[in-house]
This record gives sequence, C-alpha cells and structure tokens, in this order.
Amino acid sequence: MPWPTGTPSHGKAATPESIDRLNEITDYFAEKMEGAKVGCLWGTANMFSHRRWMSGASTNPDPDVFAYAAATVKSCMDATQKLGGQNYVLWGGREGYETLLNTDMGRELDHMGAFLNMVVEYKHKIGFKGQILVEPKPQEPSKHQYDFDAATCIGFLRKYGLEDEVKLNLEQGHAILAGHSFEHEIAVAASEGMLGSIDMNRNDYQSGWDTDQFPNNVPEVALCYYHILKAGGLGLGGTNFDAKLRRQSLDAEDLIAAHVGGMDICARGLKAAAAMIEDGGLENALAERYAGWDGAEAQAMLKSDLASISERVLGGGLEPQPRSGRQEILENYDSRFV
Amino acid sequence: MPWPTGTPSHGKAATPESIDRLNEITDYFAEKMEGAKVGCLWGTANMFSHRRWMSGASTNPDPDVFAYAAATVKSCMDATQKLGGQNYVLWGGREGYETLLNTDMGRELDHMGAFLNMVVEYKHKIGFKGQILVEPKPQEPSKHQYDFDAATCIGFLRKYGLEDEVKLNLEQGHAILAGHSFEHEIAVAASEGMLGSIDMNRNDYQSGWDTDQFPNNVPEVALCYYHILKAGGLGLGGTNFDAKLRRQSLDAEDLIAAHVGGMDICARGLKAAAAMIEDGGLENALAERYAGWDGAEAQAMLKSDLASISERVLGGGLEPQPRSGRQEILENYDSRFV
Amino acid sequence: MPWPTGTPSHGKAATPESIDRLNEITDYFAEKMEGAKVGCLWGTANMFSHRRWMSGASTNPDPDVFAYAAATVKSCMDATQKLGGQNYVLWGGREGYETLLNTDMGRELDHMGAFLNMVVEYKHKIGFKGQILVEPKPQEPSKHQYDFDAATCIGFLRKYGLEDEVKLNLEQGHAILAGHSFEHEIAVAASEGMLGSIDMNRNDYQSGWDTDQFPNNVPEVALCYYHILKAGGLGLGGTNFDAKLRRQSLDAEDLIAAHVGGMDICARGLKAAAAMIEDGGLENALAERYAGWDGAEAQAMLKSDLASISERVLGGGLEPQPRSGRQEILENYDSRFV
Amino acid sequence: MPWPTGTPSHGKAATPESIDRLNEITDYFAEKMEGAKVGCLWGTANMFSHRRWMSGASTNPDPDVFAYAAATVKSCMDATQKLGGQNYVLWGGREGYETLLNTDMGRELDHMGAFLNMVVEYKHKIGFKGQILVEPKPQEPSKHQYDFDAATCIGFLRKYGLEDEVKLNLEQGHAILAGHSFEHEIAVAASEGMLGSIDMNRNDYQSGWDTDQFPNNVPEVALCYYHILKAGGLGLGGTNFDAKLRRQSLDAEDLIAAHVGGMDICARGLKAAAAMIEDGGLENALAERYAGWDGAEAQAMLKSDLASISERVLGGGLEPQPRSGRQEILENYDSRFV
Repeated sequence: MPWPTGTPSHGKAATPESIDRLNEITDYFAEKMEGAKVGCLWGTANMFSHRRWMSGASTNPDPDVFAYAAATVKSCMDATQKLGGQNYVLWGGREGYETLLNTDMGRELDHMGAFLNMVVEYKHKIGFKGQILVEPKPQEPSKHQYDFDAATCIGFLRKYGLEDEVKLNLEQGHAILAGHSFEHEIAVAASEGMLGSIDMNRNDYQSGWDTDQFPNNVPEVALCYYHILKAGGLGLGGTNFDAKLRRQSLDAEDLIAAHVGGMDICARGLKAAAAMIEDGGLENALAERYAGWDGAEAQAMLKSDLASISERVLGGGLEPQPRSGRQEILENYDSRFV
Repeated sequence: MPWPTGTPSHGKAATPESIDRLNEITDYFAEKMEGAKVGCLWGTANMFSHRRWMSGASTNPDPDVFAYAAATVKSCMDATQKLGGQNYVLWGGREGYETLLNTDMGRELDHMGAFLNMVVEYKHKIGFKGQILVEPKPQEPSKHQYDFDAATCIGFLRKYGLEDEVKLNLEQGHAILAGHSFEHEIAVAASEGMLGSIDMNRNDYQSGWDTDQFPNNVPEVALCYYHILKAGGLGLGGTNFDAKLRRQSLDAEDLIAAHVGGMDICARGLKAAAAMIEDGGLENALAERYAGWDGAEAQAMLKSDLASISERVLGGGLEPQPRSGRQEILENYDSRFV
Repeated sequence: MPWPTGTPSHGKAATPESIDRLNEITDYFAEKMEGAKVGCLWGTANMFSHRRWMSGASTNPDPDVFAYAAATVKSCMDATQKLGGQNYVLWGGREGYETLLNTDMGRELDHMGAFLNMVVEYKHKIGFKGQILVEPKPQEPSKHQYDFDAATCIGFLRKYGLEDEVKLNLEQGHAILAGHSFEHEIAVAASEGMLGSIDMNRNDYQSGWDTDQFPNNVPEVALCYYHILKAGGLGLGGTNFDAKLRRQSLDAEDLIAAHVGGMDICARGLKAAAAMIEDGGLENALAERYAGWDGAEAQAMLKSDLASISERVLGGGLEPQPRSGRQEILENYDSRFV
Repeated sequence: MPWPTGTPSHGKAATPESIDRLNEITDYFAEKMEGAKVGCLWGTANMFSHRRWMSGASTNPDPDVFAYAAATVKSCMDATQKLGGQNYVLWGGREGYETLLNTDMGRELDHMGAFLNMVVEYKHKIGFKGQILVEPKPQEPSKHQYDFDAATCIGFLRKYGLEDEVKLNLEQGHAILAGHSFEHEIAVAASEGMLGSIDMNRNDYQSGWDTDQFPNNVPEVALCYYHILKAGGLGLGGTNFDAKLRRQSLDAEDLIAAHVGGMDICARGLKAAAAMIEDGGLENALAERYAGWDGAEAQAMLKSDLASISERVLGGGLEPQPRSGRQEILENYDSRFV
C-alpha cells in the first residue's frame, strides 16, 4: 500500500473549453506533485451531480448522454495518467433506476457492459498501467444501482468478459447499506482475486444510511485489514477516506482531528490485523476445519457424479457427525489483538 | 402456468431404509395423483433442518456431508421425476456462514459449483424434463447465504458454467430481505432469461423478516405479475405459497380462509397485470423513452471506442438535455388497473 | 375534515425587519384568501434549515437560540392566527442530538417542556382557537429526535403537563422510519384522544428512508382512514401532502399528475374505509373478542389485588383456553373493500 | 453492582400442584445458596411460551388469562423474595398485538396499567425490598409490544402513576431492534432516574434481529458503562447475559469460552469507562457547552413567556452564532480509553 491515504482526483469534462481547463489544472497539479511524498491513488469522473446524468451516464435512455459520458471518461483517464494515478475508479451512482416502470434493465446493462469494455480498451491503448476499478453501492442516489455489491459487480464483469481486467473499490458504508459486513465484501472480492482498493468511511448502524463518517471502532477496522492481509494486501490500491465531518463540526480543528483520529484508528486496526496474521492461530484453526478436503478421495469426489457418490454413501452407512464451529472461541481469540 | 398453486414435495433420504420409505410414500402419492387435476410443481430436499447440515450441505467442511447431500439429492430427484414434478428446487439455507473467521468462502463456493454441476449432469442422465432451480435468500438461517439474491445467483451460475441449465425460484419475502422489491428480482431474472418459478409469500415490512405471510396487497402483486407477463410467463414454473398462518390463527377455518384469500389476491393481481399489458400504455412509454437507441448511429456507437466518440462529442458541441422520467404519471397510470 | 388538503404556511422571523416582511406577505395572503374555498390547515416555523438551529431550537445549548426560537414561534403563531389557521404545528427536526457525548439529554428535555408550555400559554393569551400539534419523527436531520414517535411524544406531553393541550400531527413516512405502521401511530394517538392531523406522504419501504413520496397504495391508505374514522375523524386537522416529486420528474405535468394521483388514492382509501365502518363486520368481531371484559366480575377484578385473584384462580382450577385471533380472516374481510 | 452477573430465576405457576413444585425447587435453591458468593439478581415469570399467553397475559382479551397471570406473578414474586432476589422483572413479550384489526389497544393498555399497579401494591404488602422492573422490547415475539422502548415505557408508567415505583431493565439487543443505540436507552432511563438493570447481550447489526449474542466489542461496551457510571451505577441492578451460543457451537468448551469472553469484554469496557470518568475531559466539555444556561438570566427565561422573550430579542438585535459540536474530537478523545 504505497499511498495508504492518497488524494483521489475528480473531474468532469466534455467540451473543448472544459478540457482546456482540466489540462491547465492538472498541469499545475503535476508540477506541484513533482518530488512529493504523496501521489494520486485514483482518478475518476463525477457523472452523477450534473442534471444531465439524472437518468444515468452509460445507461441513459438518451444515446447522446452515453456519448458525453464516453468523452468525459476519456479526458479523466488522460488526466489520471498524467498525474501518475494508480487506479481509475468508476462509481455508477446514476447507473440504475428510480422506478422499473420506466426502465429497460437488460438493455441498460448491455450498454454499461459495452461502455466498460471501451474503458478497458482505452486503458490499453494509452498504456495506462493502473487498475480499472468499479465501486459497488446498492442504492442512493438511485433507488437501485446496478453495481449493488461485490458479488453483483463480479457477476456483471464476468458476463461482459471483464473479469480479468477490472477490480473493485470497496467502501465500508456501501457494504452495510447492501446488508453485508465490510469484511464480507472484502472476502468476496479477495476470493475472486478482484480486491482493488478500499474507502474506510463508515455508516451509522442506527440509521443504516451512507453517512460517510470517519472510522472510530478499532475491532471492526482490524477485521477488515485481517482479510486484506490474508489476501496479500491491496497491491496498487490503498485506504481512502471518503468521509465528511458531522453537521455541527464547524472548526478547522474538527477537520484535522477527524483525519488524525481516523488514521489512528486505521493504524491500530492494521497493527492488530498484522498481529493476528503473525500469531497464526486463526489460520491454523481454519486449515484444520477443512483438512478433510485435502485428501485424494475428497478431491476425486468433486470430479465424480451423484449416482456413484450415492452408491458409496448407501453402501457405507455414512452418518457424518456435526463438529463445533467454535464461533465464540474464535471471536474471543480475535479480540485479544485489539 | 399449468399448475399455478401446485403442491411441492419435500424429502430427505440417504440410507437404504429411508430410501425404501421414500419410495413407498411416493408410490402411494403417484397412485393417488393419477387422473388428478393438480400436479407436482417441484420437488426438493430438506438439507437444512437436521443437525448434520448445520455447517452446510455441499459447502460443509466435512466431505462426508457433501457425499450425504449428493445421495439425498439423487434420491429426491428420482422421487420428483416419478411424481411428474415440473421443477427441482435447491434452496441453500445452510450454504453460507455464521462467521467469516471459520470459513473459507472461495473453497466452499467451488464445492457448491461442483455439486450443482453434478445435479445438472444427473438430470440429463435420467432424462428429467423439468427445470433445475436455485432459490435466492440473503440470510436466515445462516448469517450469510451464498445465494444472496437473483444477481448473485446468476453470477455464480455463470462462473460455474451453469447459466443455460439452471433458473431461479424467487420468493417475495426473500427479495425484501435482500433489500429489493419482488418485481426487481423478477426483472433481473427475466432480463437474463432465468425466471423459473415464484413463491408468493411475503414479509412484514415493519420487521423486514421472512415471516412467510399470505399475500394481501393487490397493487403489489399486480406489479409482480406485470413483470412476469412481460417476460412471457413462468413456463414450467408456477405460483407457490410457502406461507404460514399467524401464531394466533388456531382454527381450521383460518387455514382455509388464508389460502382462499391469498389465491384471491393473486387472481386479482394477475387480472390487473393482464389489463396493463393489454392496455399497452406503459409499454409504449417505455419504447418511446429508449427510441433514441434504435437508430443505426446509436447502435454503431456501442461497437465504437472512447477516443472516436470523444472526437465526435467535442466536435459537435453536444449538450444533451434531461427529459422527465414521468415517474408519478406512470405510477398513477399503473394504479388505474388495481 | 373541512380542508382535507389545505396549504400549510411556513415562516421564520425574529428581527423587526423580517417580522415586517412576514406581516406584509401574510396581509397579502389574507386578502387573497378572502372568500376562497380553501383555508390554512396549519402554520409552523422553520427552525431547522438555518445554521443557527444546527444544535437545536428550544433545546440548544445556547440560551440565545432558545430566545430566538421563542420570538420566531410567537410571530409565526400570530401569522397563523391572522390567516385563520386551524392548527399550529411544531416539528422538532433539530430538537435531538448527533452524539450523546456532547449532549445533556435531561436538561434539553426540560427546556423543550418549558418552551412548549410557553407556546400553549401564548395560544390562550391571544385567543387562538386552533390546535397546537407536535410532529413525531425519530431521526433525520438529527441522529435522534426527542419527538421519536407518537408514544414518546405523548409521554413527553404528560411529563410536562401538556396532555390536554397538545395533539399530534402524524406522517406516514415518519411512522415507518420509527419502526411502526402508519395505522399504529394513528391508533396510539387515537387511544389517548391526541389525534390531530396527518401528512399522507410515504416512505419507500426498500430504503426505509423519509423520501416523502406521494401515496400510491389504496389498501394501505384505507387502513389509515379506517382508524381515523373509528376515532371520530380528524376534527380541526386534515390530510396534508408533505410530498416531493421524484428526481427525474421535471415537467409541470408531473407536478399536477402527482397531486391528482395522490388525492385520488386518498379518496379511494377513504371511501373504502367508510364502507368498512358501515359494514360493521370488523367492529363486531372486535366487540365479540373482548366481550368477556364487559361483565361485572371482570371489571371488579381490575380493581382487585394479586393475592385475592390468586386465591380465586387456585381455588377454581382455572385453565383458560386460547382462542383464534382470526388474523387472515380479518385481513381477507378487510381486503374486500379496496 | 453487587452481583454483576447474577443468575435470574424464571418460573410459571398457577395451580396448587405447580406452586407446590415451585416451592420445593426454590426451597432447594435457597438451601444451596446459603453462604454462596452469588445471589439472585432478579426473578421473573415466563408468560410468553405457553400457548395460553398467545394473545397476551395482562392484556389478553380473555379475563381468565389476566387472572391466571396475576396468580402466576404472585407466586413468582413470593419465590423471588424467598431467594433474596434484588429485582423482579416483567418482560411483556405477548403484551402487544399481531394485527390492529383484532386489537383494542387503549383497553389493553388500561388492563396492563391496572395489573402493574397490583404488582407494586403486592410488593409493598409482602415487604419485598427489591426493585420492580419492566423490560422494553419493540417487537418479537409480537408484531408490536407495548413496552416498545425506554421512552414508551416511561410514558406508560407516568400515565398509570407508577413512575416512582418501577424502573427499567434494558437490553442491548432490544435497543438496537427499536432503532436506538444501547447508550441512548441507558441515557433516557438515567435522565428520568429509572435505570434499573441491564442485559448485555447484543444483536447482529447485519440482520438487526434479536440474536442474543455475547458482547464482543469493547468500544461499544465502554460507552454503555460510561453512561451507567455517570448515572451513579446500577444500584440494586446488575449486568445480566441473556445470551445464547451460536448454532454451530456444540461443545462444553464453547459455553465456557463464550461466558469468559463476554465477561472479559464487559470488564475491559467498564475499566475504560471508569478511566473516562476519572479523566474528566468529556464531562468538562459538556459542562462548558451548556454553561450559558447556568446564569440567572437564562434560568429566568425558562419561567418567562413568548411575548416578553420576543420583545427582548427584537429589541436587542440578537443574532446567535453556531458553535462547533466537536463530535469527531469527542469521539477521538473517547477512543483513547479503549
């Protein structure tokens, strides 16, 4: 994780004038970034605030908006490459629907698939070495967003032949909003080799809404990093705060304290996760639990068929006994490290 | 929908004795069903109640449980075929986890994929003409179930090469539990050609829990059937009630009234949906909204690339204007029919 | 319900200049309202948008904000009286907290109680004949609002001696947000004689958020009006739409259609509720269920004590048998009318 | 907190035979408890499992069930007194409704109020020195329970004249289920002087259901004890685990580990809370925030009226400026101690 709290760059541009301005700004940024210790974690395009995106960007019923989105993403990918961005993120806040009564979902998904294929093709064309990431979120601002959660995104990527080209940028608050834990989303992405980067801002469990609060609970953060470390880390990705101060936090001091506190919580969580990995106890328990599957017979069964397995079961009087999942023991073991 | 409220058959069997009993029972059923007007909508195996399935069936850390599950499903598929079942359903209530700390998710998913491939292979081997269905549910009894929702199931099926062999059995209550509307799940499955069958029992929105109540709201049911009719109907599938009487409904009269009332609500919803289709107003509005995509230029753009689209946009001074999504008009239009 | 969809008047004013402007505007309104068929359902003061209310109005840690709120409410009550308003509503969106760590809840509640007593005293002083209403909402914009739901408000009113002076303005969306059905909130208020007025805008169940959508489900609306009619109607209150168009509804036609459609749904619901009342079946079933309590012995028991009841039970071999609650029968009965 | 994890005693009894058995059992318990270091935290009666309570105990439509409940509670209060119980708890899992269509809420609440008054009267009659506690829970097993949350219970107690006689037994999982944090419920009860005892078992935030899991998050537990310590402790109350092992935790070792781990988490949380109190930083910040209200003028205003406050505001050109609520700073400050 070279730049664990790097500064993402946002942009929107699809007229000659706006592209000139984008170039001017990014040239200035590039100059100031020379020799700096922090770099650009990722670039993206804001295709959700302006009213033109109201009914979607790549999934808009109007082909002209699709075209406008294509031009916007091209210029933002160019800018990201110029600034040495390590990733390019697409968050589809308007790629979804408000009501199914006015929506052709299958058609919109095909358009989104075509669009993302163009993004990947352009990445290779310009030699961008970073990762292309999509960011799951189930709803808000739309009633339903197509990138609902990690599993839905992965299914979409596989359908449109993108599973080797695109990874995921996961956010704690979006995981909760989708009815998951954050570590679940991380484990899903990791199990498919698609863990790209994370946003460590959290929801308030009481409302369940995407309130983008700074992290403040070390045991929760530790579990997230534990799964990240098990997956081999974030590679080109990093830890981003897409967080906002609370309404009544008006002072400059509040802004500093929030970031310092959030980073501190992440650091404590990461150290706890590293200790859990080094200790090895949890990993050993896991290996032991699945040890039965390591034998040749079990592996052969997976390539077998119902009829022959059934024959073996009926012949052998098999009566498997349940074994404890040891949940509380594992949770207590885990809590030692935080 | 030949048997809109057919009677599913459940079973569990993996010893020679239990299979003998299963055969005896199903022979008796088959005899009684001869000449009957109702048939068997689907068969399934209960692999979630007995404590042996506590940590999963095909995803159990113990390979012997996987084997036991294979034998059980084989015998239940045999029984379903004998009874002329139109579908065979797999609901994986224990295929998931209680805590990630004791779970190897990637490994378990691979086992579930291998298992389902065996089911499909066995279907062809015995010449079963029905559909193989999986049933999405996000949680309960497990903390997380791998068949979370329609999109997750479809992604799983595609990953393991099963997208042309397996369809979905969708339930209203499971849709709500996953953070969707029921019509959303239907539309997702329909957009992929994977709409198999439905369970028309509902959640209580107040708790959000899977309370398996009889349907009692015509406008909601009408929207579900509208999307089913748009998809061409349920084919070999049908409408099942996986519903329970409320706690204090003790009398036989309650049981009858609940089923009569539920069927009545479904009938009123289906008739309203048919009227919506015949009216054509909603479909026309949809076609008009996407008409821009029907032209050759728009279609060509989908096969194009970012750079050339961008060139066209910047050259042409494109400034697309948002158009009303007409949500309230469509919702009022829809409400005329119920 | 004389003005079932009357126009509420909002105001904020606490400087001599702003009060002059308020007077000018309301004089103009009053002139235009002369002879009109619609009247002013209620007046209120917006004490939640301006940043001065950030930490509360009557519950602000700064006494000067309390004073400013008092002056604001006084001038808005004056304006409401001038316009013939039938009610004055206080919605305390900022009367609550963002974090308990910076909040003295007991102290803030005492201040809110003192404030509301002043409002009631001022009502009598100026001879305002309308009702004073508070509007329950559990959260948003605050993390917690003191007027959480109907029961909480009623408890608060009783604590501060206001139970005979203040009633409730209930909103469908706020009921859902608090984990209730709308009819529950209506029934709670009605059982205490504190049902004041209603806002018939709804939440989207999928998100559970306060999305202020127009009503579009007749069976739900019918249940609400059923409980209102059972309580004898809304008296000086009425049906207000505190609703917003959806994001993509841009046209004037959308605005008209939304209101027409919402009123139509309410009218259909009200007619269904009236038919339920006239039919009498549900009321008869209710009376029959509780008939055991109508006898003298049962009434005497309520004034008795544990020891003597226990003696009777142990002596009499009492073994009461459960009777069906007939839930599905009642729900089917109810669904006939919509 | 003399017995922080004491053993509650449950009972159900209303026939001469069952009371004989209850006496035999409790005599045996009393003998074994002589000289023991642990005592009885509270006694209660199970009036929710047996089918006779299906439609409520004190709120049952059948007066005979009310009588049966009265006899049951009398004998369980006798048993609790014999065992030296420090509290007697009433949890009304069936005091609520499944559907409003068959429920007379106002009547049922009056019956519940009469019943609880009899309990208090009996307490004094037998000289029971412990506390009478009610336990808030919003739903489950009923669709709605009258003891929804702390604020609702307090309103009920005040309505029926019981606010000086009855306190609250609060549970973390019930707080979450009602849309609150646990510390919120504690703060509400504390602000009214009605904090009685706590159940430290938690919900799973992912489902929001009452899963009765052992506590495992120190920062959360610390916040709860912080508010308890601020309120002066639990007095006759204590910390109870109403917790269950997870489904797959089969071994005796799991049971021990769960309790050890839960107590450990509570001990760490309590020590952190004590350190927060001793540090004083949070309390000082709170006092400073409300300091404006300590002056004589502010206090006089609370006894004033709208018109005179308004005059002062308009004359004085009051323009109060918002001050930061310092939420992140306080949350960071708090996180130092865990």
